[in-house]
Amino acid sequence: MLNGVDTDVLLETIGAIKVDPAIAKFEFRATNQWIDGALNRSQIKEFYGAKKVDTSRSTAFVFDNDEPPVLIGENRGANPVEFLLHGLAGCLTTTLVYHAAVRGIKLNSVKSTLEGDIDIHGLLALTDQVRPGYQQIRVSFDIDSPASREQLAELVKFAKDHSPVCDSVSNPVDVVVKLA
Amino acid sequence: MLNGVDTDVLLETIGAIKVDPAIAKFEFRATNQWIDGALNRSQIKEFYGAKKVDTSRSTAFVFDNDEPPVLIGENRGANPVEFLLHGLAGCLTTTLVYHAAVRGIKLNSVKSTLEGDIDIHGLLALTDQVRPGYQQIRVSFDIDSPASREQLAELVKFAKDHSPVCDSVSNPVDVVVKLA
Repeated sequence: MLNGVDTDVLLETIGAIKVDPAIAKFEFRATNQWIDGALNRSQIKEFYGAKKVDTSRSTAFVFDNDEPPVLIGENRGANPVEFLLHGLAGCLTTTLVYHAAVRGIKLNSVKSTLEGDIDIHGLLALTDQVRPGYQQIRVSFDIDSPASREQLAELVKFAKDHSPVCDSVSNPVDVVVKLA
Repeated sequence: MLNGVDTDVLLETIGAIKVDPAIAKFEFRATNQWIDGALNRSQIKEFYGAKKVDTSRSTAFVFDNDEPPVLIGENRGANPVEFLLHGLAGCLTTTLVYHAAVRGIKLNSVKSTLEGDIDIHGLLALTDQVRPGYQQIRVSFDIDSPASREQLAELVKFAKDHSPVCDSVSNPVDVVVKLA
Protein backbone atom coordinates (compact mmCIF):
# COMPACT_ATOMS: atom_id res chain seq x y z
CA MET A 1 0.00 0.00 0.00
CA LEU A 2 1.31 3.44 -0.93
CA ASN A 3 -0.77 6.63 -0.80
CA GLY A 4 -3.74 4.46 0.19
CA VAL A 5 -3.47 2.64 -3.16
CA ASP A 6 -3.09 -1.13 -3.22
CA THR A 7 -0.32 -1.20 -5.81
CA ASP A 8 -0.44 -5.02 -6.07
CA VAL A 9 -4.09 -4.84 -7.17
CA LEU A 10 -3.33 -1.94 -9.52
CA LEU A 11 -0.42 -3.82 -11.12
CA GLU A 12 -2.54 -7.00 -11.35
CA THR A 13 -5.23 -4.98 -13.15
CA ILE A 14 -2.66 -3.62 -15.59
CA GLY A 15 -1.35 -7.16 -16.16
CA ALA A 16 -4.86 -8.49 -16.80
CA ILE A 17 -5.57 -5.72 -19.33
CA LYS A 18 -2.37 -6.56 -21.20
CA VAL A 19 -3.64 -10.15 -21.56
CA ASP A 20 -7.25 -9.18 -22.38
CA PRO A 21 -7.66 -5.57 -23.60
CA ALA A 22 -11.49 -5.83 -23.42
CA ILE A 23 -11.22 -5.59 -19.61
CA ALA A 24 -10.36 -1.90 -20.08
CA LYS A 25 -13.65 -0.95 -21.76
CA PHE A 26 -16.05 0.90 -19.46
CA GLU A 27 -19.48 2.47 -19.97
CA PHE A 28 -20.45 4.90 -17.20
CA ARG A 29 -24.12 5.79 -16.74
CA ALA A 30 -26.38 8.35 -15.13
CA THR A 31 -30.07 9.16 -15.16
CA ASN A 32 -31.45 12.60 -14.41
CA GLN A 33 -34.90 13.92 -13.63
CA TRP A 34 -35.96 17.55 -13.75
CA ILE A 35 -37.81 18.67 -10.61
CA ASP A 36 -38.52 22.42 -10.94
CA GLY A 37 -36.75 25.44 -12.39
CA ALA A 38 -32.99 24.88 -12.14
CA LEU A 39 -33.40 21.92 -9.76
CA ASN A 40 -32.77 18.47 -11.19
CA ARG A 41 -31.54 15.21 -9.68
CA SER A 42 -29.17 12.54 -10.96
CA GLN A 43 -28.89 8.93 -9.89
CA ILE A 44 -25.65 7.06 -10.47
CA LYS A 45 -25.28 3.39 -9.63
CA GLU A 46 -24.39 0.76 -12.22
CA PHE A 47 -21.76 0.86 -14.91
CA TYR A 48 -20.25 -1.63 -17.32
CA GLY A 49 -16.57 -2.45 -16.96
CA ALA A 50 -14.16 -5.37 -16.75
CA LYS A 51 -16.54 -7.29 -19.02
CA LYS A 52 -19.63 -7.11 -16.82
CA VAL A 53 -22.18 -4.79 -15.24
CA ASP A 54 -20.80 -3.74 -11.87
CA THR A 55 -23.01 -4.57 -8.87
CA SER A 56 -20.76 -3.28 -6.08
CA ARG A 57 -23.08 -0.41 -5.17
CA SER A 58 -26.16 -1.42 -3.18
CA THR A 59 -27.74 2.05 -3.42
CA ALA A 60 -27.48 4.81 -6.00
CA PHE A 61 -25.53 8.01 -5.49
CA VAL A 62 -27.94 10.94 -5.73
CA PHE A 63 -26.88 14.50 -6.58
CA ASP A 64 -28.91 17.66 -7.10
CA ASN A 65 -28.07 20.47 -9.49
CA ASP A 66 -29.47 23.93 -8.85
CA GLU A 67 -28.35 27.50 -9.51
CA PRO A 68 -27.71 30.42 -7.15
CA PRO A 69 -30.30 33.24 -7.09
CA VAL A 70 -28.24 35.40 -9.47
CA LEU A 71 -28.75 32.61 -12.02
CA ILE A 72 -32.47 32.26 -11.16
CA GLY A 73 -32.16 29.30 -8.78
CA GLU A 74 -32.34 28.67 -5.03
CA ASN A 75 -28.97 27.09 -4.14
CA ARG A 76 -30.52 23.69 -3.45
CA GLY A 77 -27.37 22.19 -4.99
CA ALA A 78 -24.14 23.23 -6.65
CA ASN A 79 -24.57 24.12 -10.28
CA PRO A 80 -23.59 21.93 -13.24
CA VAL A 81 -20.44 23.87 -14.17
CA GLU A 82 -19.30 23.64 -10.54
CA PHE A 83 -19.83 19.86 -10.60
CA LEU A 84 -17.59 19.80 -13.66
CA LEU A 85 -14.83 21.49 -11.59
CA HIS A 86 -15.36 18.92 -8.83
CA GLY A 87 -14.99 16.05 -11.30
CA LEU A 88 -11.93 17.66 -12.86
CA ALA A 89 -10.25 18.18 -9.48
CA GLY A 90 -10.95 14.62 -8.41
CA CYS A 91 -9.85 13.03 -11.66
CA LEU A 92 -6.55 14.93 -11.81
CA THR A 93 -5.93 14.06 -8.15
CA THR A 94 -6.69 10.33 -8.47
CA THR A 95 -4.63 10.05 -11.67
CA LEU A 96 -1.75 11.76 -9.86
CA VAL A 97 -2.09 9.62 -6.71
CA TYR A 98 -2.29 6.30 -8.61
CA HIS A 99 0.71 7.01 -10.82
CA ALA A 100 2.70 8.30 -7.83
CA ALA A 101 1.97 5.00 -6.07
CA VAL A 102 3.16 2.92 -9.04
CA ARG A 103 6.35 5.02 -9.20
CA GLY A 104 6.98 4.68 -5.47
CA ILE A 105 6.47 8.39 -4.78
CA LYS A 106 4.99 8.98 -1.33
CA LEU A 107 2.48 11.83 -1.01
CA ASN A 108 1.73 13.49 2.32
CA SER A 109 -0.93 15.88 1.07
CA VAL A 110 -2.42 17.02 -2.23
CA LYS A 111 -4.64 20.09 -2.46
CA SER A 112 -5.94 21.84 -5.53
CA THR A 113 -7.66 25.11 -6.26
CA LEU A 114 -9.73 25.57 -9.42
CA GLU A 115 -11.10 28.63 -11.19
CA GLY A 116 -13.02 28.67 -14.45
CA ASP A 117 -14.24 31.56 -16.59
CA ILE A 118 -17.67 31.58 -18.19
CA ASP A 119 -19.44 34.43 -19.96
CA ILE A 120 -23.19 33.72 -19.87
CA HIS A 121 -23.81 35.61 -23.11
CA GLY A 122 -23.34 32.13 -24.63
CA LEU A 123 -25.80 30.29 -22.35
CA LEU A 124 -28.41 32.99 -22.91
CA ALA A 125 -27.85 32.90 -26.69
CA LEU A 126 -27.32 36.68 -26.74
CA THR A 127 -24.50 36.33 -29.27
CA ASP A 128 -22.76 33.53 -31.12
CA GLN A 129 -19.42 35.33 -30.62
CA VAL A 130 -19.11 34.01 -27.03
CA ARG A 131 -18.89 30.28 -26.37
CA PRO A 132 -21.36 28.91 -23.79
CA GLY A 133 -18.72 26.85 -21.98
CA TYR A 134 -15.59 27.52 -19.99
CA GLN A 135 -13.17 29.90 -21.71
CA GLN A 136 -10.33 28.79 -19.45
CA ILE A 137 -9.96 26.61 -16.34
CA ARG A 138 -6.96 27.07 -14.04
CA VAL A 139 -5.90 24.32 -11.64
CA SER A 140 -3.17 24.87 -9.07
CA PHE A 141 -1.79 21.91 -7.10
CA ASP A 142 -0.19 22.24 -3.69
CA ILE A 143 1.63 18.97 -2.90
CA ASP A 144 3.56 17.93 0.18
CA SER A 145 5.90 15.04 -0.62
CA PRO A 146 9.52 14.00 -0.08
CA ALA A 147 9.86 13.86 -3.91
CA SER A 148 11.76 16.61 -5.69
CA ARG A 149 9.98 19.58 -7.20
CA GLU A 150 11.00 18.30 -10.64
CA GLN A 151 9.42 14.90 -9.95
CA LEU A 152 6.22 16.53 -8.69
CA ALA A 153 6.03 18.91 -11.65
CA GLU A 154 6.41 15.94 -13.99
CA LEU A 155 3.72 14.06 -12.05
CA VAL A 156 1.30 16.99 -12.38
CA LYS A 157 1.99 17.16 -16.13
CA PHE A 158 1.46 13.39 -16.39
CA ALA A 159 -1.86 13.66 -14.52
CA LYS A 160 -3.01 16.45 -16.86
CA ASP A 161 -2.21 14.29 -19.89
CA HIS A 162 -3.82 11.06 -18.58
CA SER A 163 -6.81 12.18 -16.49
CA PRO A 164 -10.06 11.11 -18.20
CA VAL A 165 -11.99 14.21 -17.11
CA CYS A 166 -9.12 16.55 -18.00
CA ASP A 167 -8.86 14.96 -21.46
CA SER A 168 -12.65 15.12 -21.89
CA VAL A 169 -12.61 18.85 -21.16
CA SER A 170 -9.35 19.74 -22.93
CA ASN A 171 -10.17 17.86 -26.13
CA PRO A 172 -13.41 17.39 -28.09
CA VAL A 173 -15.79 14.59 -27.06
CA ASP A 174 -18.51 13.35 -29.40
CA VAL A 175 -21.66 14.18 -27.41
CA VAL A 176 -24.80 12.81 -29.06
CA VAL A 177 -27.98 14.38 -27.68
CA LYS A 178 -31.34 13.14 -28.92
CA LEU A 179 -35.04 13.23 -28.14
CA ALA A 180 -36.22 9.70 -27.31
CA MET B 1 -43.59 31.64 -13.56
CA LEU B 2 -43.31 28.88 -16.16
CA ASN B 3 -41.56 25.54 -15.56
CA GLY B 4 -40.58 26.86 -12.13
CA VAL B 5 -38.58 29.65 -13.80
CA ASP B 6 -39.34 33.26 -12.93
CA THR B 7 -39.31 34.51 -16.51
CA ASP B 8 -39.58 38.17 -15.39
CA VAL B 9 -36.31 37.85 -13.47
CA LEU B 10 -34.69 35.96 -16.37
CA LEU B 11 -35.75 38.61 -18.88
CA GLU B 12 -34.59 41.40 -16.50
CA THR B 13 -31.21 39.68 -16.27
CA ILE B 14 -30.97 39.50 -20.05
CA GLY B 15 -31.91 43.19 -20.27
CA ALA B 16 -29.28 44.16 -17.69
CA ILE B 17 -26.57 42.23 -19.59
CA LYS B 18 -27.49 44.05 -22.79
CA VAL B 19 -26.87 47.37 -20.98
CA ASP B 20 -23.71 46.20 -19.16
CA PRO B 21 -22.06 43.13 -20.72
CA ALA B 22 -19.65 42.78 -17.74
CA ILE B 23 -22.57 41.41 -15.68
CA ALA B 24 -22.29 38.21 -17.75
CA LYS B 25 -18.73 37.40 -16.68
CA PHE B 26 -18.51 34.59 -14.09
CA GLU B 27 -15.63 32.80 -12.41
CA PHE B 28 -16.65 29.53 -10.75
CA ARG B 29 -14.40 28.05 -8.08
CA ALA B 30 -13.69 24.81 -6.23
CA THR B 31 -11.08 23.54 -3.84
CA ASN B 32 -10.22 19.88 -3.42
CA GLN B 33 -8.28 17.90 -0.85
CA TRP B 34 -6.97 14.38 -1.28
CA ILE B 35 -7.85 12.09 1.64
CA ASP B 36 -6.60 8.59 0.80
CA GLY B 37 -6.31 6.44 -2.32
CA ALA B 38 -9.11 7.41 -4.73
CA LEU B 39 -10.98 9.39 -2.07
CA ASN B 40 -10.84 13.17 -2.32
CA ARG B 41 -13.24 15.93 -1.29
CA SER B 42 -14.26 19.20 -2.96
CA GLN B 43 -15.73 22.30 -1.39
CA ILE B 44 -17.77 24.68 -3.52
CA LYS B 45 -19.13 27.93 -2.15
CA GLU B 46 -18.21 31.33 -3.55
CA PHE B 47 -18.00 32.43 -7.14
CA TYR B 48 -17.60 35.73 -8.94
CA GLY B 49 -20.47 36.90 -11.14
CA ALA B 50 -22.66 39.91 -11.86
CA LYS B 51 -19.67 42.09 -10.93
CA LYS B 52 -19.15 40.80 -7.39
CA VAL B 53 -18.26 37.79 -5.29
CA ASP B 54 -21.49 35.95 -4.55
CA THR B 55 -22.31 35.46 -0.86
CA SER B 56 -25.67 33.73 -1.20
CA ARG B 57 -24.37 30.41 0.17
CA SER B 58 -23.89 30.30 3.94
CA THR B 59 -22.17 26.92 3.86
CA ALA B 60 -20.10 25.15 1.26
CA PHE B 61 -21.33 22.26 -0.86
CA VAL B 62 -19.12 19.24 -0.15
CA PHE B 63 -18.71 16.31 -2.54
CA ASP B 64 -16.52 13.22 -2.37
CA ASN B 65 -14.96 11.43 -5.32
CA ASP B 66 -14.00 7.79 -4.98
CA GLU B 67 -13.77 4.79 -7.30
CA PRO B 68 -15.51 1.40 -7.22
CA PRO B 69 -13.42 -1.63 -6.17
CA VAL B 70 -12.78 -2.65 -9.81
CA LEU B 71 -10.97 0.70 -10.13
CA ILE B 72 -9.14 0.25 -6.79
CA GLY B 73 -11.49 2.34 -4.64
CA GLU B 74 -14.18 1.74 -2.03
CA ASN B 75 -17.33 3.41 -3.44
CA ARG B 76 -17.26 6.19 -0.83
CA GLY B 77 -18.48 8.52 -3.59
CA ALA B 78 -19.30 8.51 -7.29
CA ASN B 79 -16.23 8.73 -9.48
CA PRO B 80 -15.04 11.84 -11.33
CA VAL B 81 -16.20 10.74 -14.78
CA GLU B 82 -19.65 9.99 -13.33
CA PHE B 83 -19.78 13.49 -11.80
CA LEU B 84 -19.07 14.81 -15.30
CA LEU B 85 -22.18 12.97 -16.55
CA HIS B 86 -24.20 14.47 -13.66
CA GLY B 87 -23.04 17.99 -14.57
CA LEU B 88 -23.75 17.38 -18.25
CA ALA B 89 -27.27 16.08 -17.56
CA GLY B 90 -28.06 19.00 -15.28
CA CYS B 91 -26.67 21.64 -17.60
CA LEU B 92 -28.50 20.36 -20.66
CA THR B 93 -31.71 20.14 -18.61
CA THR B 94 -31.48 23.63 -17.11
CA THR B 95 -30.59 25.17 -20.47
CA LEU B 96 -33.59 23.41 -22.00
CA VAL B 97 -35.95 24.39 -19.14
CA TYR B 98 -34.90 28.08 -19.14
CA HIS B 99 -35.21 28.52 -22.89
CA ALA B 100 -38.54 26.66 -22.91
CA ALA B 101 -39.79 29.12 -20.26
CA VAL B 102 -38.72 32.15 -22.32
CA ARG B 103 -40.46 30.68 -25.39
CA GLY B 104 -43.63 29.92 -23.45
CA ILE B 105 -43.28 26.14 -23.80
CA LYS B 106 -44.71 24.31 -20.80
CA LEU B 107 -42.86 21.19 -19.68
CA ASN B 108 -44.54 18.50 -17.61
CA SER B 109 -41.51 16.26 -17.18
CA VAL B 110 -37.94 16.01 -18.45
CA LYS B 111 -35.86 12.89 -17.93
CA SER B 112 -32.53 12.01 -19.41
CA THR B 113 -30.36 8.91 -19.62
CA LEU B 114 -26.62 9.18 -20.19
CA GLU B 115 -23.99 6.66 -21.22
CA GLY B 116 -20.33 7.37 -21.84
CA ASP B 117 -17.55 5.13 -23.16
CA ILE B 118 -14.07 5.14 -21.65
CA ASP B 119 -11.19 2.75 -22.33
CA ILE B 120 -8.84 2.86 -19.34
CA HIS B 121 -5.80 2.01 -21.44
CA GLY B 122 -5.48 5.82 -21.64
CA LEU B 123 -5.76 6.49 -17.90
CA LEU B 124 -3.22 3.75 -17.17
CA ALA B 125 -0.87 5.10 -19.88
CA LEU B 126 -0.64 1.63 -21.46
CA THR B 127 -0.75 3.15 -24.94
CA ASP B 128 -0.95 6.59 -26.48
CA GLN B 129 -3.31 5.22 -29.15
CA VAL B 130 -6.32 5.39 -26.77
CA ARG B 131 -7.49 8.72 -25.37
CA PRO B 132 -7.88 8.86 -21.57
CA GLY B 133 -11.27 10.61 -21.73
CA TYR B 134 -14.72 9.80 -23.01
CA GLN B 135 -14.77 8.44 -26.56
CA GLN B 136 -18.48 9.18 -26.89
CA ILE B 137 -21.29 10.31 -24.59
CA ARG B 138 -24.91 9.59 -25.51
CA VAL B 139 -27.76 11.58 -23.95
CA SER B 140 -31.38 10.64 -24.54
CA PHE B 141 -34.16 13.01 -23.42
CA ASP B 142 -37.66 11.86 -22.60
CA ILE B 143 -39.91 14.94 -22.42
CA ASP B 144 -43.60 15.24 -21.62
CA SER B 145 -44.99 18.54 -22.92
CA PRO B 146 -47.95 19.85 -24.90
CA ALA B 147 -45.43 21.22 -27.45
CA SER B 148 -45.02 19.43 -30.78
CA ARG B 149 -42.30 16.85 -31.31
CA GLU B 150 -40.67 19.28 -33.78
CA GLN B 151 -40.58 22.04 -31.14
CA LEU B 152 -39.14 19.66 -28.55
CA ALA B 153 -36.51 18.32 -30.95
CA GLU B 154 -35.47 21.91 -31.74
CA LEU B 155 -35.35 22.69 -28.00
CA VAL B 156 -33.08 19.69 -27.36
CA LYS B 157 -30.80 20.82 -30.21
CA PHE B 158 -30.77 24.36 -28.82
CA ALA B 159 -29.86 23.06 -25.34
CA LYS B 160 -26.99 21.00 -26.80
CA ASP B 161 -25.64 24.09 -28.57
CA HIS B 162 -25.97 26.49 -25.59
CA SER B 163 -25.31 24.36 -22.49
CA PRO B 164 -22.04 25.46 -20.84
CA VAL B 165 -21.09 21.93 -19.73
CA CYS B 166 -22.04 20.41 -23.09
CA ASP B 167 -19.94 23.02 -24.91
CA SER B 168 -17.05 22.46 -22.46
CA VAL B 169 -17.09 18.73 -23.20
CA SER B 170 -17.88 18.90 -26.93
CA ASN B 171 -15.25 21.55 -27.71
CA PRO B 172 -11.71 22.14 -26.41
CA VAL B 173 -11.25 24.12 -23.19
CA ASP B 174 -7.89 25.64 -22.27
CA VAL B 175 -7.12 23.79 -18.99
CA VAL B 176 -4.01 25.17 -17.30
CA VAL B 177 -2.65 22.81 -14.63
CA LYS B 178 0.34 23.88 -12.56
CA LEU B 179 2.28 23.04 -9.42
CA ALA B 180 1.97 25.94 -6.98
